[in-house]
Amino acid sequence: MHPDLAALIAAVHPADPAAMGAARERQAQLTKPTGALGDLESLAVRLAGVFGTEKPHPRGVAVLVAAGDHGVAAGGVSAYPPEVTPAMVANFLADTPAGPGGAAVNAIARTVGARVYVMDAGVNADLPNHPALVRAAVRRGTRDLRREGAMTREEAETLVLAGAALARRAIEEGADLLVPGEMGIGNTTPAAALTARLLNLDPQGVTGRGTGVDDATLARKVEAVCAALNRQASDPADPLGVLADLGGFEIAAMLGMMLQAAALRRAVILDGFVEGSAALVGMALAPALCDFLFPAGECAEVGHAAQLAHLNLKPMFRLGLRLGEGTGGVLAAPLLLSAAATLREMRTFAEAGVPGGSEG
Amino acid sequence: MHPDLAALIAAVHPADPAAMGAARERQAQLTKPTGALGDLESLAVRLAGVFGTEKPHPRGVAVLVAAGDHGVAAGGVSAYPPEVTPAMVANFLADTPAGPGGAAVNAIARTVGARVYVMDAGVNADLPNHPALVRAAVRRGTRDLRREGAMTREEAETLVLAGAALARRAIEEGADLLVPGEMGIGNTTPAAALTARLLNLDPQGVTGRGTGVDDATLARKVEAVCAALNRQASDPADPLGVLADLGGFEIAAMLGMMLQAAALRRAVILDGFVEGSAALVGMALAPALCDFLFPAGECAEVGHAAQLAHLNLKPMFRLGLRLGEGTGGVLAAPLLLSAAATLREMRTFAEAGVPGGSEG
Repeated sequence: MHPDLAALIAAVHPADPAAMGAARERQAQLTKPTGALGDLESLAVRLAGVFGTEKPHPRGVAVLVAAGDHGVAAGGVSAYPPEVTPAMVANFLADTPAGPGGAAVNAIARTVGARVYVMDAGVNADLPNHPALVRAAVRRGTRDLRREGAMTREEAETLVLAGAALARRAIEEGADLLVPGEMGIGNTTPAAALTARLLNLDPQGVTGRGTGVDDATLARKVEAVCAALNRQASDPADPLGVLADLGGFEIAAMLGMMLQAAALRRAVILDGFVEGSAALVGMALAPALCDFLFPAGECAEVGHAAQLAHLNLKPMFRLGLRLGEGTGGVLAAPLLLSAAATLREMRTFAEAGVPGGSEG
Repeated sequence: MHPDLAALIAAVHPADPAAMGAARERQAQLTKPTGALGDLESLAVRLAGVFGTEKPHPRGVAVLVAAGDHGVAAGGVSAYPPEVTPAMVANFLADTPAGPGGAAVNAIARTVGARVYVMDAGVNADLPNHPALVRAAVRRGTRDLRREGAMTREEAETLVLAGAALARRAIEEGADLLVPGEMGIGNTTPAAALTARLLNLDPQGVTGRGTGVDDATLARKVEAVCAALNRQASDPADPLGVLADLGGFEIAAMLGMMLQAAALRRAVILDGFVEGSAALVGMALAPALCDFLFPAGECAEVGHAAQLAHLNLKPMFRLGLRLGEGTGGVLAAPLLLSAAATLREMRTFAEAGVPGGSEG
């Protein structure tokens, strides 16, 4: 393993239990009935643990969209042709009357005040130069996982480190809440393969309709996942080996973003199924990563529920999103910022002179 | 009926079907798989209908918190004493290091950029003068609905008109998304009574634990609702009569806010169970009101699900909130603003030169 990657994994430590305890005590004194803020209360306590203070104050929000192509897309596993990947990268970067970017993630990020970063993690095209495009590709798309390992271990590690570098930059530029996002035609197929292998689940149960494929395409997807899993028994005890064997460049990059955010004690908002597959690899490498993950919504992709159950985390909403790009994660940012604000800005019963106090 | 109120009710017209049709057409061309933004897509189309344009652009968000006391609180139906109502009004208005207001709704509103308005709709206390407190009380708390009508019809109508006036002011001051909110110890009891009568449901099924009452208090609440319903058969065909008989001053004020927002074609974000009871009265008066209502979350209070089923609207999240104050509504504002932004700011497949286009 690259020594930088080993160091990154070793730098992921659990959330701060003392700060969480102090936050829980403070929360019991705030001017509201005990538990009345529902899940916002546990989210606030978890943020206290991430930021190491009973009054967490996350500021900037950044979504880091990694794009990559997939050899398996040649197998007809998506409703869209692979040319959509570079076209969407151009869309993320386009000048529009509303500002930079004409995709859903741009519109939502502008609304909630999140900064968008775009990375070429391995797109199969000549991408035009753009000052906002981070170039990290080592190859134009992965190999076809039905027939061979999608990436070499070195390629995968390089992309993990590139994702970590982008996360460091976003954090240096003010981000405290990081949303890894992705674009890559075909990428729910490797995400399903990773989920099946790492959670030891049946391919049928974790392979879904992605962008909205028909029954015949879904059958081809399940076949592709089965072929990949049967081709070689990469060992779940070697998560980077599984990632290289079955993953994708943007998935590797998102893994690096998550590890780096956790190592620098920032919160990661987890968007959908492809992001979840990166998180599963991360949890296998550094179980404490889980303390830094905040699932946004239960997405419509089958298999996402299994990921969330493994992470033992409850999503914030259930809007049936299945777009990716980090859209759900960006949408969830105001909920997390609000949860932190209640701990920081609400007065206690004593401060406010409100009768009642904690019911315990 | 007061002629101003009759005029207000008559001014509530359905959402604009042409704008919704145009929004649906536009949405099918945006750079995303069909349906991939899940419920955000139907929310965006509904906003197009509210604002009468395929590119809705709601700007300001305002939460209007009406506070009132309840005669029935003397019957021990809450975990908190009635003195909490004025103390929380003071908390909504307090100077704090973070800004005005030390309650949950203040902290969340600051986070999402919503303006907070506070109204004395009928608090049983001498409230200190404060420039930001809107005074609309005609009585210090309602009568005890177990024994007599909570309000006279004139009192109820006066508060509806006061709520409408505050909504007009908020809209004049820039609000396009309005969140009616409430504070009033004991007010889930009248909300349950209103819900039971208007939906013809059993009191047990709609009377919940409010601030978190124990079994004995819950039994007293159910008894209180039963007593109120048995005392007099106010007629569901006369919604204002039912409101006066079983409601509360802050509920009447929220009804006015909703009617006025709809009449001026602004969106109303519907927070919890007490807000829902005002919406039920509003729907009975002006069925088109429903087009302007956007439920925030499914709240933990039993009976809320029955209200949502009657409104035939799906909430945006399920965080288990049961605080009131409009907290859930304010939390949902960024989701609605984001939904509108996707219609307005995303490029179409043709504009972006992305292959694929609508799958229909």
